[in-house]
Amino acid sequence: MEEKKLSIILFSGEYDKAMAALILANSAREMNITVHIFFAFWGLSLIRDPDKMSLEDKNTFEKMFSLMAPKGPEDLPLSKMNFGGLGKVMLKEMMEEHHAPDLTAFLKGAQKKGVNFYACKLSVEVMGYKLEEFLPDVKELTANEYLADALEADIQLFI
Amino acid sequence: MEEKKLSIILFSGEYDKAMAALILANSAREMNITVHIFFAFWGLSLIRDPDKMSLEDKNTFEKMFSLMAPKGPEDLPLSKMNFGGLGKVMLKEMMEEHHAPDLTAFLKGAQKKGVNFYACKLSVEVMGYKLEEFLPDVKELTANEYLADALEADIQLFI
Amino acid sequence: MEEKKLSIILFSGEYDKAMAALILANSAREMNITVHIFFAFWGLSLIRDPDKMSLEDKNTFEKMFSLMAPKGPEDLPLSKMNFGGLGKVMLKEMMEEHHAPDLTAFLKGAQKKGVNFYACKLSVEVMGYKLEEFLPDVKELTANEYLADALEADIQLFI
Repeated sequence: MEEKKLSIILFSGEYDKAMAALILANSAREMNITVHIFFAFWGLSLIRDPDKMSLEDKNTFEKMFSLMAPKGPEDLPLSKMNFGGLGKVMLKEMMEEHHAPDLTAFLKGAQKKGVNFYACKLSVEVMGYKLEEFLPDVKELTANEYLADALEADIQLFI
Repeated sequence: MEEKKLSIILFSGEYDKAMAALILANSAREMNITVHIFFAFWGLSLIRDPDKMSLEDKNTFEKMFSLMAPKGPEDLPLSKMNFGGLGKVMLKEMMEEHHAPDLTAFLKGAQKKGVNFYACKLSVEVMGYKLEEFLPDVKELTANEYLADALEADIQLFI
Repeated sequence: MEEKKLSIILFSGEYDKAMAALILANSAREMNITVHIFFAFWGLSLIRDPDKMSLEDKNTFEKMFSLMAPKGPEDLPLSKMNFGGLGKVMLKEMMEEHHAPDLTAFLKGAQKKGVNFYACKLSVEVMGYKLEEFLPDVKELTANEYLADALEADIQLFI
């Protein structure tokens, strides 16, 4: 059978939307569908390695941005009903109750299952991130490269 | 002519985004396009039947969640300019002025026109909803089933 | 080679999301991909011409709405970390630092490169806008016309 492909742009930097993207990605891998996630803008927060944040060689705005933007999966807010973090605590409790893994587990699972992680080159530059601040195995991709890839995909989603 | 198919994930629980999804769905049905809407996370609020909310057999978090999350279409906030509900009143007045139906009418229209409603199984479980709290004719679907279906669609949107 | 097509619904009225849509659109044009952007709901704010706003022949709600909704690209807020406009100033500084053009430049670039701009007819009517308040070369399209067009596209995104 011809190989199928799922292409996701993860633009949003929110816990629940990242969860949706990763659940789709991991489910697709179980079905042997190739998955490419293109992290852009706020979506880059998800693949920041909390232990590798660096302020070196960054200008003032980039330093401020690095400090203010969420640092990795568990630092993301909810898109709705966040209530200063209370809503997220609730959601996480409800997920645990139902033995659903948390976002970090979904993220690690995705990398283990072979989901391909790409960082939008322009967003990385504008936000002043460095590739070494991200999780391992994240490659940079231009918008042109994303498009060339997405044209070959069977499902394209913007999340 | 080969049958066309539109596949929508409705993740957002907002009045205006639900409106966009339903307008597309209803327009597609007028063109004989098969439409599947997969309600996930906050999107499930739209298909809650306001008269069927139940707190039985729910744990504390699930009860809190049931009480705090919007109960059906008219209870959803706007994604922007909500101003504590004032923006929504304005939008609804403006729609009425132009004889555009409200969200409830679009929702009923969708079911009459044969739009297929699916609830994301994992979201239903995590949020502690029960199928009988939703509108009639809503079926549960796993992420795998959604993907298998979306692969066959001509248009896939994440709203 | 067969011509490829990218179809975007721009529903959101936020600076960063509009940026994402226009970067994709402009990149696609560089690759000779046909691009159609269908501006709906809040997305219409992006194509308002700040110099052509009119309150004539509008009822009270439409006037209020015209005054409150963002007037053109530079008036759009960020979807996240807006901090009353401070976050946007920061992002714009960071973009300038990296010689990335601003949203207005991306918008003009898109029209020059032949990206097709369509305004959702129903949204225009409900929000009380008039076609002459928009940028030149914006055509109105119904949801049915959008769908017929999107069915022929290789990539469809809802932003």
